[in-house]
Amino acid sequence: MNFPIDLRSDTVTQPTPEMRQFMAQAEVGDAVIEVDPTTERLEKLTAEMLGKEAAIYMPSGSMTNQIAIRLHCQPGDEFLCEENCHVYNYEQAAFAQLSGVVARTLPGENGVLKPEQFEGIIRPENDHLVRTKLVCLENTHNRGSGKVLPFETVEKITSWAHAGGLKTHLDGARLFNAAVATGISVADWSGMFDTVSVCFSKGLGAPVGSALVGPAEFIRQAKRGRKLFGGGMRQSGIIAAGALFALQNNVDRLSEDHEKAARLAEAVRQSEGIALDVDPVETNIVIFSIEKELGTAAQLQSALSEKGVKVLSVAPQKIRMVTHLDVSMTQIDAAIEVIKQTLPGMA
Amino acid sequence: MNFPIDLRSDTVTQPTPEMRQFMAQAEVGDAVIEVDPTTERLEKLTAEMLGKEAAIYMPSGSMTNQIAIRLHCQPGDEFLCEENCHVYNYEQAAFAQLSGVVARTLPGENGVLKPEQFEGIIRPENDHLVRTKLVCLENTHNRGSGKVLPFETVEKITSWAHAGGLKTHLDGARLFNAAVATGISVADWSGMFDTVSVCFSKGLGAPVGSALVGPAEFIRQAKRGRKLFGGGMRQSGIIAAGALFALQNNVDRLSEDHEKAARLAEAVRQSEGIALDVDPVETNIVIFSIEKELGTAAQLQSALSEKGVKVLSVAPQKIRMVTHLDVSMTQIDAAIEVIKQTLPGMA
Amino acid sequence: MNFPIDLRSDTVTQPTPEMRQFMAQAEVGDAVIEVDPTTERLEKLTAEMLGKEAAIYMPSGSMTNQIAIRLHCQPGDEFLCEENCHVYNYEQAAFAQLSGVVARTLPGENGVLKPEQFEGIIRPENDHLVRTKLVCLENTHNRGSGKVLPFETVEKITSWAHAGGLKTHLDGARLFNAAVATGISVADWSGMFDTVSVCFSKGLGAPVGSALVGPAEFIRQAKRGRKLFGGGMRQSGIIAAGALFALQNNVDRLSEDHEKAARLAEAVRQSEGIALDVDPVETNIVIFSIEKELGTAAQLQSALSEKGVKVLSVAPQKIRMVTHLDVSMTQIDAAIEVIKQTLPGMA
Amino acid sequence: MNFPIDLRSDTVTQPTPEMRQFMAQAEVGDAVIEVDPTTERLEKLTAEMLGKEAAIYMPSGSMTNQIAIRLHCQPGDEFLCEENCHVYNYEQAAFAQLSGVVARTLPGENGVLKPEQFEGIIRPENDHLVRTKLVCLENTHNRGSGKVLPFETVEKITSWAHAGGLKTHLDGARLFNAAVATGISVADWSGMFDTVSVCFSKGLGAPVGSALVGPAEFIRQAKRGRKLFGGGMRQSGIIAAGALFALQNNVDRLSEDHEKAARLAEAVRQSEGIALDVDPVETNIVIFSIEKELGTAAQLQSALSEKGVKVLSVAPQKIRMVTHLDVSMTQIDAAIEVIKQTLPGMA
Repeated sequence: MNFPIDLRSDTVTQPTPEMRQFMAQAEVGDAVIEVDPTTERLEKLTAEMLGKEAAIYMPSGSMTNQIAIRLHCQPGDEFLCEENCHVYNYEQAAFAQLSGVVARTLPGENGVLKPEQFEGIIRPENDHLVRTKLVCLENTHNRGSGKVLPFETVEKITSWAHAGGLKTHLDGARLFNAAVATGISVADWSGMFDTVSVCFSKGLGAPVGSALVGPAEFIRQAKRGRKLFGGGMRQSGIIAAGALFALQNNVDRLSEDHEKAARLAEAVRQSEGIALDVDPVETNIVIFSIEKELGTAAQLQSALSEKGVKVLSVAPQKIRMVTHLDVSMTQIDAAIEVIKQTLPGMA
Repeated sequence: MNFPIDLRSDTVTQPTPEMRQFMAQAEVGDAVIEVDPTTERLEKLTAEMLGKEAAIYMPSGSMTNQIAIRLHCQPGDEFLCEENCHVYNYEQAAFAQLSGVVARTLPGENGVLKPEQFEGIIRPENDHLVRTKLVCLENTHNRGSGKVLPFETVEKITSWAHAGGLKTHLDGARLFNAAVATGISVADWSGMFDTVSVCFSKGLGAPVGSALVGPAEFIRQAKRGRKLFGGGMRQSGIIAAGALFALQNNVDRLSEDHEKAARLAEAVRQSEGIALDVDPVETNIVIFSIEKELGTAAQLQSALSEKGVKVLSVAPQKIRMVTHLDVSMTQIDAAIEVIKQTLPGMA
Repeated sequence: MNFPIDLRSDTVTQPTPEMRQFMAQAEVGDAVIEVDPTTERLEKLTAEMLGKEAAIYMPSGSMTNQIAIRLHCQPGDEFLCEENCHVYNYEQAAFAQLSGVVARTLPGENGVLKPEQFEGIIRPENDHLVRTKLVCLENTHNRGSGKVLPFETVEKITSWAHAGGLKTHLDGARLFNAAVATGISVADWSGMFDTVSVCFSKGLGAPVGSALVGPAEFIRQAKRGRKLFGGGMRQSGIIAAGALFALQNNVDRLSEDHEKAARLAEAVRQSEGIALDVDPVETNIVIFSIEKELGTAAQLQSALSEKGVKVLSVAPQKIRMVTHLDVSMTQIDAAIEVIKQTLPGMA
Repeated sequence: MNFPIDLRSDTVTQPTPEMRQFMAQAEVGDAVIEVDPTTERLEKLTAEMLGKEAAIYMPSGSMTNQIAIRLHCQPGDEFLCEENCHVYNYEQAAFAQLSGVVARTLPGENGVLKPEQFEGIIRPENDHLVRTKLVCLENTHNRGSGKVLPFETVEKITSWAHAGGLKTHLDGARLFNAAVATGISVADWSGMFDTVSVCFSKGLGAPVGSALVGPAEFIRQAKRGRKLFGGGMRQSGIIAAGALFALQNNVDRLSEDHEKAARLAEAVRQSEGIALDVDPVETNIVIFSIEKELGTAAQLQSALSEKGVKVLSVAPQKIRMVTHLDVSMTQIDAAIEVIKQTLPGMA
């Protein structure tokens, strides 16, 4: 058995030998002065898969999301989002810090908002008030245990937004998981939004990078934004090749990650003292709560780590486990075994 | 009877002849180059009344609040506040727009937060996260129908904040109303906070201005902030005199405004089709909801306005009325009469 | 003889009894909720005098200038200005600090730029570069000893700007001095610019305030900007009345200030050890250099101050004196006497 | 002969087969959650070579520079720099746009400032003024034709800065060229500054990335800044390996690029109608002016491009050529031949 078993995130994956080979042979150019051909291929394929005019490759999902917000909004504009979403909580509030934009958070259930929550919340034109400009959703929802937003819910919210003159952005860091889990294509999901950001270094297994997709002129401006944020990379084709390989080879296999997560979830269900945050688990993220009598999440994380199972404490009493292509089903079973052995000793 | 009767806000008051006379005779100097003596007197008296080292006079409460936030926080810091409060909603989010600061809003009940809501919400040090730095409260709470925050609640929240290394700021635009309503001095209220902003042009009846009070060095920096925001005024003594007069003459009489509001509230209670948002009314603000069958708030506002009673529609089905020193009890009775005549005709 | 004689700035003037009376009787209203009639009168008169559609009153010239820049430019835009001008040097760089705008400074001769300096400096569209959007000029030029920009120079520069798609803003804090000195109307000066800011609390002698004038829609947005910066004042009519009185009564008399400055200049010319920075003096500002053998400007400022003559050290070896309506010609002569007596003792 | 010959920039280089192999075999980890071992090795080696406590790898030199400025300065602080430098002109003024910092530019001679220009320019503490905090130099200076700043000049300026309480940052995008050209080690150059940024994707030939070096705590904060700007990359070891390879293999060979540039310079000297901007050429950048009778720089760029020689028009009458490891001496001779054939036809 290969230990450690790293379930902290699906970002920890190592490039496979095939992917490394593909990167080593990538055709490259200076993407700042002109064009990097491999990056261009990646961007075209991504745009095509998501059914948008254009795409742009960037070093991280924080950059794609925050540049999207910066372009959709001006200083003093407001975007609406779920209160536990990534763009509000885990990107250092770059929207405010760098772009002068304000967030208005709505409480969701496992990351899912109800269309009714949006009724009447576009602020009227008034010198006291900011201007409501954008809705940001996240699918799958990280802190919602990888929950897939219901398609109809997304349809209603984005239709409401567009009818009210708002723009819409999807943080689709794990949109491919949503597509594989539902059988609804990424293009269908993407079609409801003005812009979408997707990540290659999560379940898809590439070492680096995300893409922002949207209308051609928007992506043109995003290139300017990328330069501003310092994301202009010269021969980016080397890492873009990893992303391209991932996109061409690692999408369908996400279903395996979902099976592994389901097995982890089943183990949590059967264990005393811990309980699933969201049940059922829909994609590759399992979050569970630990009863205070057993100790804190930090203690459990530490105890599991000593036995070679790495998990992430995401709240005082909450642990997150994420499955991905570097953890086999056999390792999942081993991890379950370790958890089962560890829990009783915590009491 | 003097019509119109203006209940839109306590900011609409006209300076009295005595106040005008006082302003006309004010001793002045260049406050930017050196010192304006009347402004200085106002600042000293304000600081003294609120039990703080120093105070600074500014053209508006938005400026005092937003400079306080700017000084307590750096770009990428977060402040905690109630979701309907003034600094988050009605100051164009200057904290984000000008200062790169992010707000984290908590849902209150009529503007009042529970100490339990703060448990565990200071973000840990982590490169993904903003830094939690400040708690902002508002007392009385404008959108909470002028509700006075319970003293013990404020005590618990501010103690929790200071224990956790956070700073505290009070938007005390109507703090004098809270003091008069509870018999607890403004100094006692102020004592729980690092900084407090108070307004002279609301119930106190001065034409222009607010003050920010706090530690001497903080106020020194606030003077620099005031210059940055363009709030440096030369012979500000003219209007500071109005504020000084207000502070010396118009505090105790706020109890009359509360009586007038109570009478308005009683009238609302007795009327069909409208209902108090918060009952009882504690200070000088009455907010009521109107049933949809009777029409919208905008329609009622318009109907009342035609008959000489000015109120403010603050939501699709909500009307706000504020009492102040330019509306007599006789006018209140007249306004009640107009409301009673108007409501039935709305159906 | 009335001592002290304050020549530090034309901002130190005290409102006269007539102006005080006028302010005390001003008709006022709530300018934030609705309209303050005196402020409205001031704004209309200012717009009319400057030949623009609309004007807006604000607490300071820093606010009018910085809001103008904020509205003409977006974050990442650039404005062109003379390197010693007020908006770049003496307003805490609010354009960068609050608005994310960058300044490109050009070296002038006594504040005057040559049209040739602008040739070819509009940056091309390129992702590495900011976008050149605005030219800001200052007339009269404070650090240029109150020099009037030559009309033809201004005409050439603003024509060049408009031809290149740039906007133009005039910091006309002392535009009335320029008009009186040249006999060219403020409307003619103003006509060359998209927006102009003028100050009432300098030579005009009002206690507080400036106005920004320009197209109606621009001024509409400026009102929103004023709220953002915290410059929304309720019954601003009290101080707007001072500005209105100043505008109606104190423009033509600026010629007297220019005569006083000329007399001061003549005295400097005749004195050993000091020399005019700009000769001749064109309006109401006299800046002179002091030879190092006589001591520093700070020492001279201090020595003069002890004898009741207040001047301002503006550089290690430079002193500024400004004439205004609170210093009579007799006082000017007295000040000259003091200077003549003081200089020899410095050696 | 291999055409095209690309002299537009030293950023256009392709990774060699050896570098590609080295990247393909790089040991990697998740640099955001924990550590990427290859990135860590690169950072340690860079810090060591530059004699600083720590280093951090980022996707671009714009990011390293702009984060350095953001950390050295707060909003409303000022940095001093040469007017043609990269951080002011070619990074979209992120310092202002994202960080609220203002630049004060000084005119240099071919990018070189004189220590005397700094005398007396630290602004005093005053509410009108920004605070002077930082000096940024650039070595070699791109727009100064790759000129090496004289060591003693740098020593005097940085000593002056530190004595005055200022911080110092070096944009060392081409610092290795300066070191090779002078025989003075990068550590000696670096030792004069608080922080230094170096680039791996210019003359060193790596595909992507720059590093910021400085005190450990500063670099710790820079990691937070990198996350904010969206520069956090997961398995960054792939591209960091390219940088590591470059650092270990491609430093000394920069002397060959300097020889090639010298040969280009000699050809310019001998040609009619064009003239060197800076003579002698000290490193790998040649900038020459073209007489207007021959046409514009854009026309010459276009004419050369058709014959397979790519150069960059950097001003209406200026062309830049940069030598690097993908252009052999034989190609240089071929390029010279093309230039000589092309110029006469321009007339």
